[in-house]
Amino acid sequence: MKMSEQEGITVKKGENFSEWYTQIVEKAELSDIRYNVKGFVVFRPWSVMSMELMYDFLEAEMRAKGHKPAWFPALIPESNFKKEADHVEGFGAEVFWVTEAGSEGKKLEERLAMRPTSETAMYNMYALWIRTWRDLPMKLYQRCQVWRYEGKATRPFIRSREFYWVEGHDVFATQEEAEAQVAEDMEVTENVLHGKYGIPFIFFQRPQHDKFAGAVNTYAADTIMPDGRALQLPSTHLLGQNFAKAFDIKFADKDGQEKYVWQTCYGPAVSRIFAAVIGIHGDDKGLVMPPNISPVQIVIIPIYDDSSKKKVLEAADGIKAKVDKQFRVEVDARDEYTPGWKFNHWEVRGVPLRIEIGPKDMKKDQVVFVRRDSGEKEEVKQTKIAVEAKRMLRKIQKNVSKKADKYMKGHMHRANTTRSLKKTLREKGGFVKVNWCESDECADYIKAETDGGVIRGTRFGVEDRKRGKCVHCKKETDTVVYVARQY
Amino acid sequence: MKMSEQEGITVKKGENFSEWYTQIVEKAELSDIRYNVKGFVVFRPWSVMSMELMYDFLEAEMRAKGHKPAWFPALIPESNFKKEADHVEGFGAEVFWVTEAGSEGKKLEERLAMRPTSETAMYNMYALWIRTWRDLPMKLYQRCQVWRYEGKATRPFIRSREFYWVEGHDVFATQEEAEAQVAEDMEVTENVLHGKYGIPFIFFQRPQHDKFAGAVNTYAADTIMPDGRALQLPSTHLLGQNFAKAFDIKFADKDGQEKYVWQTCYGPAVSRIFAAVIGIHGDDKGLVMPPNISPVQIVIIPIYDDSSKKKVLEAADGIKAKVDKQFRVEVDARDEYTPGWKFNHWEVRGVPLRIEIGPKDMKKDQVVFVRRDSGEKEEVKQTKIAVEAKRMLRKIQKNVSKKADKYMKGHMHRANTTRSLKKTLREKGGFVKVNWCESDECADYIKAETDGGVIRGTRFGVEDRKRGKCVHCKKETDTVVYVARQY
Repeated sequence: MKMSEQEGITVKKGENFSEWYTQIVEKAELSDIRYNVKGFVVFRPWSVMSMELMYDFLEAEMRAKGHKPAWFPALIPESNFKKEADHVEGFGAEVFWVTEAGSEGKKLEERLAMRPTSETAMYNMYALWIRTWRDLPMKLYQRCQVWRYEGKATRPFIRSREFYWVEGHDVFATQEEAEAQVAEDMEVTENVLHGKYGIPFIFFQRPQHDKFAGAVNTYAADTIMPDGRALQLPSTHLLGQNFAKAFDIKFADKDGQEKYVWQTCYGPAVSRIFAAVIGIHGDDKGLVMPPNISPVQIVIIPIYDDSSKKKVLEAADGIKAKVDKQFRVEVDARDEYTPGWKFNHWEVRGVPLRIEIGPKDMKKDQVVFVRRDSGEKEEVKQTKIAVEAKRMLRKIQKNVSKKADKYMKGHMHRANTTRSLKKTLREKGGFVKVNWCESDECADYIKAETDGGVIRGTRFGVEDRKRGKCVHCKKETDTVVYVARQY
Repeated sequence: MKMSEQEGITVKKGENFSEWYTQIVEKAELSDIRYNVKGFVVFRPWSVMSMELMYDFLEAEMRAKGHKPAWFPALIPESNFKKEADHVEGFGAEVFWVTEAGSEGKKLEERLAMRPTSETAMYNMYALWIRTWRDLPMKLYQRCQVWRYEGKATRPFIRSREFYWVEGHDVFATQEEAEAQVAEDMEVTENVLHGKYGIPFIFFQRPQHDKFAGAVNTYAADTIMPDGRALQLPSTHLLGQNFAKAFDIKFADKDGQEKYVWQTCYGPAVSRIFAAVIGIHGDDKGLVMPPNISPVQIVIIPIYDDSSKKKVLEAADGIKAKVDKQFRVEVDARDEYTPGWKFNHWEVRGVPLRIEIGPKDMKKDQVVFVRRDSGEKEEVKQTKIAVEAKRMLRKIQKNVSKKADKYMKGHMHRANTTRSLKKTLREKGGFVKVNWCESDECADYIKAETDGGVIRGTRFGVEDRKRGKCVHCKKETDTVVYVARQY
């Protein structure tokens, strides 16, 4: 028996989130940090199966909105990488370089960057493919991993030097269409992250000093983790014509004029969003998976002794047969583990619905449903299993999402002074609204004075400009921004 | 209008396969070889959507057989990579090395290999995870790309320095179980490549001089391309305890003894299998996609003039609505292209079924079905569209597969002398059965003497040992092997 699992999670999420997170990653076998390259981790089956389901929803939504998938090389020639000045300044420090190949270590003619993001891999090709207005819009995405040599401490899913994402790269004839794409990217984020994974967030327009390297504007979704810190989720960037000019992407318009294209890019990092799934939905017993993205939605635990074993196992298989066309379901019939061990095993992994069946239940033609999110038990007639399972899973999905929304709503505050901002960030966490004069000096001061409170930007799509005084310099301003400590 | 497409394929597959392949890759927009790193290509949406479907079948089959997915790092420390002596000898020459990072090009403490295959990334972790017999069997796979610095000419899908595959890595308590896994891998190959993609192949046990670096035995599937050359498809390897000893992967068995595990690995390269799909199923007009893996299974082409436009487009949408729950279907309603241009556009891409609808058809309450595989046309009543489409797609899938089988069967020959072997390889291509004494000298001689005829090995699972004389040295032997020129 694997005793570490049997123990379950030994700290409370609300008391020591960091330790709770470490334990859950280990005990639910989500990731292993012992891989012997600094900053790189192994993603284990339970998290990978979940993230595959997350990818499915995300890609389906992006395809429904007219994106097509492509696979671009993982290696980018240094000369491509350096074409857009801001971009290389922003990402240069984070690149792993391939410099040699073969057993003799033959030097390559040019250094090759392992993609930290793929603008500079893709846009050379875009310049070849796009000729006229008929080729636009062009909306491509790729599902891939990227590599970033960064210094901050490794935390599985939250931050590692290799992570998994989708990157969408869209090209338009006009600025208006590009701006509309940014809005569509936000809609995709809402439909998938919130609608399917149950993760709430707020979209901010980032301050100019915090935008994507090479972009005109950056819009990023932030959620709040249980320790009150903000975690950045997908961001979408209006690239304007910056890259078009650097990579010479032009098209002949309907009016016969040759013009530079307008571009956007969008980067939902599935492995990082999974960190939000762990943190936001989890509880003191372990993961709580939203049914939509749980690798196993229903686990059936047969409870038997030697005399009842055969009958109970047959009944368990019968239940499975009733639901496995509709749901992802498993019977845990392993003989070497006790039912109690199995309860814990699947609870730590967050399986939404457990069905228990034993000799007593069989006599009553029933089973017992146990909800992972609430712990509630319910006796269900054998004839009603399929319909009740469907109803229950739908309910769990809703409840998990609602709980998360409530948590988010409870973490929106307001401050008028840096002192109260600091106090609120420390004691309550979450987002704190303040007026800000838009100067870098005040942003720096706020960050230093509040132990890392960062201006996340102005809220997008919600009008909350309000006359007031900058929280630091007291200059009058309409600009209201949200401050949070961040991952 | 994109004239290059409008032209269609201008050479016949049977006359100049190489040029035909180049044209199809370009005109069906499958891949672009103009990416500016030698040996790296871009995979474009049509091929990626097909390969995603191929991945779906392959992963579903592997999961059904008890494999679970994981994601291991793309970078392997040099010290891991060098642990198994044969392995490093076999792959060392093909490794891209990451040696530095960041804008200043800071040297890393240890060189990191971009994985050419993941044994040496995974097996360190296996040694940590596997403790007792309860942890076995352990069957994991990962879907990823790998990188190999190799010298042969780049051909999209057939050979490039970056390719896409699944790699399965399984661990067992006994040799018998490992051997059974090799057989299961072959079964997966049969069910998926042949059963779903319609690609025929033969499994060979490779001669010892041609096995996977570090394996005890290698079993590889070969198909025959239209130019008569063999293309290697998935291979499965019995690793024995070689890696277990190098990576110290041991378990406490039921008898209390500590033992080394037994391992296998399996590597179906989806991007390469797609080359077989192109080559084997394609015809003089372009791709012929098996319905199972065609991104679009049915394309509806409305044929209209100004007066009928509205009605015909509505009818086309109505047809789509009838079939789009069951099939991947698209209406090509682009106004800027003619029906003739569209016919060619979708024929080059191999869409299995075209449905044409125009004013005349509407009057007769019918549509016209056109099969891509045979070119046959059929009038179908509007009320029968769904049922007929289903029947037709099933028929096309079968026919495409049968045609391929027939081609394969027609390319099995026999020779008793190197002279006739050479002649057969040159004039007929395919596999030629010969007796072979199992000496490396004779293998080398055969290869040199027949312009590249390579011994693919003994056929697996089919008894065709036969007393005869080695085709070169004339020594008596029972061993019958298959020779083919190869990619």
